Amino acid sequence: MANSKYEYVKKFEEDDRLPPSNWIVVRIDGCHFHRFSAEHEFEKPNDEKALNLMNACALAMLEQFSDIVFAYGVSDEYSFIWKETTVFYQRRASKMLSLCVSYFTSMYVSKWKDFFPHKELKGPPYFDGRVVCYPKSKIIRDYLAWRQVDCHINNQYNTCFWMLVKSGKTEKEAQEFLKGTQAKDKNELLFQQFGINYDKLPQIFRKGSSVYREKVENIVKVDGNGNPVRRMQSEVVVDHMDIIGPKFWSEHPYILKEE
Amino acid sequence: MANSKYEYVKKFEEDDRLPPSNWIVVRIDGCHFHRFSAEHEFEKPNDEKALNLMNACALAMLEQFSDIVFAYGVSDEYSFIWKETTVFYQRRASKMLSLCVSYFTSMYVSKWKDFFPHKELKGPPYFDGRVVCYPKSKIIRDYLAWRQVDCHINNQYNTCFWMLVKSGKTEKEAQEFLKGTQAKDKNELLFQQFGINYDKLPQIFRKGSSVYREKVENIVKVDGNGNPVRRMQSEVVVDHMDIIGPKFWSEHPYILKEE
Amino acid sequence: MANSKYEYVKKFEEDDRLPPSNWIVVRIDGCHFHRFSAEHEFEKPNDEKALNLMNACALAMLEQFSDIVFAYGVSDEYSFIWKETTVFYQRRASKMLSLCVSYFTSMYVSKWKDFFPHKELKGPPYFDGRVVCYPKSKIIRDYLAWRQVDCHINNQYNTCFWMLVKSGKTEKEAQEFLKGTQAKDKNELLFQQFGINYDKLPQIFRKGSSVYREKVENIVKVDGNGNPVRRMQSEVVVDHMDIIGPKFWSEHPYILKEE
Amino acid sequence: MANSKYEYVKKFEEDDRLPPSNWIVVRIDGCHFHRFSAEHEFEKPNDEKALNLMNACALAMLEQFSDIVFAYGVSDEYSFIWKETTVFYQRRASKMLSLCVSYFTSMYVSKWKDFFPHKELKGPPYFDGRVVCYPKSKIIRDYLAWRQVDCHINNQYNTCFWMLVKSGKTEKEAQEFLKGTQAKDKNELLFQQFGINYDKLPQIFRKGSSVYREKVENIVKVDGNGNPVRRMQSEVVVDHMDIIGPKFWSEHPYILKEE
Repeated sequence: MANSKYEYVKKFEEDDRLPPSNWIVVRIDGCHFHRFSAEHEFEKPNDEKALNLMNACALAMLEQFSDIVFAYGVSDEYSFIWKETTVFYQRRASKMLSLCVSYFTSMYVSKWKDFFPHKELKGPPYFDGRVVCYPKSKIIRDYLAWRQVDCHINNQYNTCFWMLVKSGKTEKEAQEFLKGTQAKDKNELLFQQFGINYDKLPQIFRKGSSVYREKVENIVKVDGNGNPVRRMQSEVVVDHMDIIGPKFWSEHPYILKEE
Repeated sequence: MANSKYEYVKKFEEDDRLPPSNWIVVRIDGCHFHRFSAEHEFEKPNDEKALNLMNACALAMLEQFSDIVFAYGVSDEYSFIWKETTVFYQRRASKMLSLCVSYFTSMYVSKWKDFFPHKELKGPPYFDGRVVCYPKSKIIRDYLAWRQVDCHINNQYNTCFWMLVKSGKTEKEAQEFLKGTQAKDKNELLFQQFGINYDKLPQIFRKGSSVYREKVENIVKVDGNGNPVRRMQSEVVVDHMDIIGPKFWSEHPYILKEE
Repeated sequence: MANSKYEYVKKFEEDDRLPPSNWIVVRIDGCHFHRFSAEHEFEKPNDEKALNLMNACALAMLEQFSDIVFAYGVSDEYSFIWKETTVFYQRRASKMLSLCVSYFTSMYVSKWKDFFPHKELKGPPYFDGRVVCYPKSKIIRDYLAWRQVDCHINNQYNTCFWMLVKSGKTEKEAQEFLKGTQAKDKNELLFQQFGINYDKLPQIFRKGSSVYREKVENIVKVDGNGNPVRRMQSEVVVDHMDIIGPKFWSEHPYILKEE
Repeated sequence: MANSKYEYVKKFEEDDRLPPSNWIVVRIDGCHFHRFSAEHEFEKPNDEKALNLMNACALAMLEQFSDIVFAYGVSDEYSFIWKETTVFYQRRASKMLSLCVSYFTSMYVSKWKDFFPHKELKGPPYFDGRVVCYPKSKIIRDYLAWRQVDCHINNQYNTCFWMLVKSGKTEKEAQEFLKGTQAKDKNELLFQQFGINYDKLPQIFRKGSSVYREKVENIVKVDGNGNPVRRMQSEVVVDHMDIIGPKFWSEHPYILKEE
C-alpha cells in the first residue's frame, strides 16, 4: 500500500533553517519552577544542590553536542551558544530547540537522585525554550552580559528578600520594604541588618555558572624511557567567573572566534 | 544596577506566533532510538512495554494540556493535535514545541521504571520535534491517516523482517529477501512460512495508539434517596482503532469540530 | 570563470513559500498619497477619476493574473485575493507581493494620462504592500467586510469633514466639530446642514469597488443556418455592490469556492 | 459603526521585521524582460539606453531613500544595499520590498520617454523582488562580487552569442557553437573572428553599474571678501568600476562601515 494519497500533508511543513554566519542561542527555562522549587523544598534564595544539578546537565550537553561552545546558567535557566558555523541538523530551528530541551530534561530527571538522594520527584520538571540568532560575537558577549547582570540583580534582591522573610517579615512586607531600593541600599541592608558582605557570598550565586571547554595539558602516556608524554586536551569545565569584562574572553579567544 | 545597556539583545528574538484558525500539530520523534532500543533490548518487531510507556506519557500530556484534543503514536513517535482555537502561550511555536517535547521526555524518564522495573536506563532517552499548522480539520484527518498508513506499512515490513531473522537469516539476507515485495506477498510469507495471520496480530501493533477524551457517564454521587447521580464526564483514553475511515470520527464529532 | 567562490551568498535567501490551502491576500496601499492627492489636486472627499484609475489598474491585474479571484478597492488601497490553491511562483510571498505591487504601479503610471489628460504627474506615485494568508473562505468574507466597513466609516467622516471645510470651517475646526460624533449624527449633519442624503451618494464612494469575473453568455459566432451560437464566458467587471451580506456571494458561489 | 466585529482578521498579519545588525539587500529583477526587450527592440547584447534608464531609476532610489548605501545593477536587475542599522519602516520586510520595487517601477515608466523619446511603451514593464539579510559587511562584498562576476560571465557569453547571430548563424547554432567554451576561448573568438578586444568594450557592459554617494568638495557660497567657501558634500553618482577587489572599498570606507 502506497502512502502517496496522504503525503501531501508534508507540504505544510516549513523550512526553518536558521541563517548562516550567525551564532545560535538556545535558552531554556524551567516551567512553573516557582511551584516546583516549593514542592521540593529548595533552599532560598539559592539551593546549591539544585544549581549543581542544572550545571551537571549543562556539562552533559557540551559533552553530547560538540558545536555548543559555551553555556551560561542562572537559577532555572540555561543558555547554550552554538558556534557560528554549526551545521547541526542543517541549522533547523525546531530540531535544535527540541533536541536541546529534551536532552536537558532527560538529564535533569535522570540525575535528580544523584543530587537529591533523599527526595522523590513529586511532579515532572520540564522546560520551555527559544532559539535566537546573533550575527556577531560582540553581540553574543552582550547577550551573556545581559544574563549575568540579570543574575546579579535577581540574586541581590532575592538575598535581601529571603533574609527579611527569615527574620520574621511576611513575603508581602519584605516586598514592600524593598520597593524602590537601589543596589547600594540593598548591600547596606545586608551588611547592617544581617552582617552579610554581599561580595563575599559564593560566586556561583552572584555570577551564575559558565560551562565551556578548557584547554588543559594532560599526561596521555609514558614513553619507552619512562618519560611522561603530555598533550593539550580539551575538557568541559564549570566555573563562576565574570563574563562581562574582557579578561575571560581574552584568555579564551577560541570560544567566540569569528570565521 | 539597570540592565538597559545590554537589553537590546532582546530585539533579536522573533515573534513566532502561529496563525489563528489553524490546527497545530506537534510531532515528536525518538532521537537515535534504533540504538536506544538495542541498548535496552526492546523486543522485535514491537516491544509492548515500550509502546505502553509511550502511551502513558501521551496520556499524561492530554491530562496536562487541555487544548490537545487528540494524540496518535506509533513506534517512538507521537503526534499531538492542538485545537484550532488554542491560545496556549499565544500560539508561540517555540513555546508549544519545547513544552511538549520537554514534558513528554520528563514523563518518559520518570515512568521508565514503572514499565521496565528490572532495566536501568543506560543512556538518556530524548526526542526531537516539529510544529506544523493545518488550516482545516479535513487535512488533520488526512495527516492522521498518513501516520496510520505509515504504521501499517512499517509494521508489516518489520514483522516479516524479524521473523526471517529469528528463523536464521542474517539482517542483510532478510532485507534482500523483502526487497520489492508487495503487501500481499508479505501477508502470504507470514502465513505460509510462519503461520501468522497478519490481521490477527494485536491492534496496537497494526493500528498504532490513539489518545483522546471519551465522554463517559459516571456515577458522581448518591442523592438523599440513595439514588445514584450520573453525570457525563470526559476521560482520557488510549485505544487502537482505525482512524482512516469515517466511523471513529462520526462517533466523536467533538474532537475535530471546526469553529 | 566559475562563480562558485561567491555563490555561498545564496544560502542566505530564505524559503518564503506560503502554506498550502490558504487564500492569499495582497493588499497594496498608496505611499504618501495624502501629499500626492494634494499635489495633483484630487477632488475631496472623493476624486472619481482617481478612483476610476485605481479600478482600471485592478481590472488589468485580474486580466494579467488569472489566479486572482477578487479584488476590492477603496481610496488609494486595493486588496487582491488569490485563490486558495494557487501555485503562482510556488506561492513565494516575496514574488507574489513584488509582482502585484510592481504591475499595479506600472499600470498606474501608464494609465495616468488616460484619466488625467490635462495633468502631468508631478512625482512618482508608489505603493507599499503586504501579504496575508487566510485559511478559510469564511474569513476572507470577513476580511472583505472589514475593508468595506472601513470604506463606509471613512467616507462618511470625510464627506462631513470636507462639506464643513467647503462651508468655511478650517480643517482643524472641522476635525474638532466631528470629534465623538456617531454615524447617526453625521447623517443628520449632512442632511440638515447640507441637504445631502448620504444613502443617495454614488455607490462607488460608499461601497468601494469590487473587481471579479462575471459569467456572461456571449454570442461567439453564427452557425451555418444564421443562428447565433452562445457560450458562457468569463469577463472581468467592476462593480460597487455590498459584499458584507450574503446576496452577492450566493449569486457568485464560484468566486470563493473551497476545494 | 464600529469595525470591531471584523477586525480579528488583522491577527493573521505576521510580524516580518528583519533581524537587527544585518545589512539588507533588496534585489529587483525585470519580469519577462526577454519579451519586453524584444518588443521594444533593445540593442543586443547590450542596449545602452535601457541600461541608462535602469541607472537613472537606481539613482533616484538613493536620492529618495537615504538608508540605501549602495546599489549595483546589471541588465534588468538591481540590488539595493540598506545600511546595517536602518530602521526604515521598522525593518519590515514587506514594506521595504514593496516600496523599493514600486518606487523603481514608477520611475522606470515615468522616465521611459526621456530615454526612448521615439518609442511608446507597448506593455507594462514590471519587476519582481526579494529581500535578503547579510550579517557582515564582508559578506555584502562577496554578494556584490557574486553579481559582478555574473555580469562578466553573462556579458562575455552574450557578446559572443550576438556577434555570431549578427554574422549569420541562427540563435540555435550560436548556442551550440558556444557550448563548453571557456573564458579564454570566447575572448579568442571575439578577437580572431570579429576583431573585438573584449577588455576594450565599455566598462558599463563589462562591470555593470554602481550607484553610491561620493564625497565631493563643493563651493557652497562666496564669503564677504569674495573668497569661495568650500564644503564636503555627498553626491549620488553612477560608476562602472571593479567592486571585487579592495581598491574601491578602501577608498570609500564609509559605505560599508560596520557599527
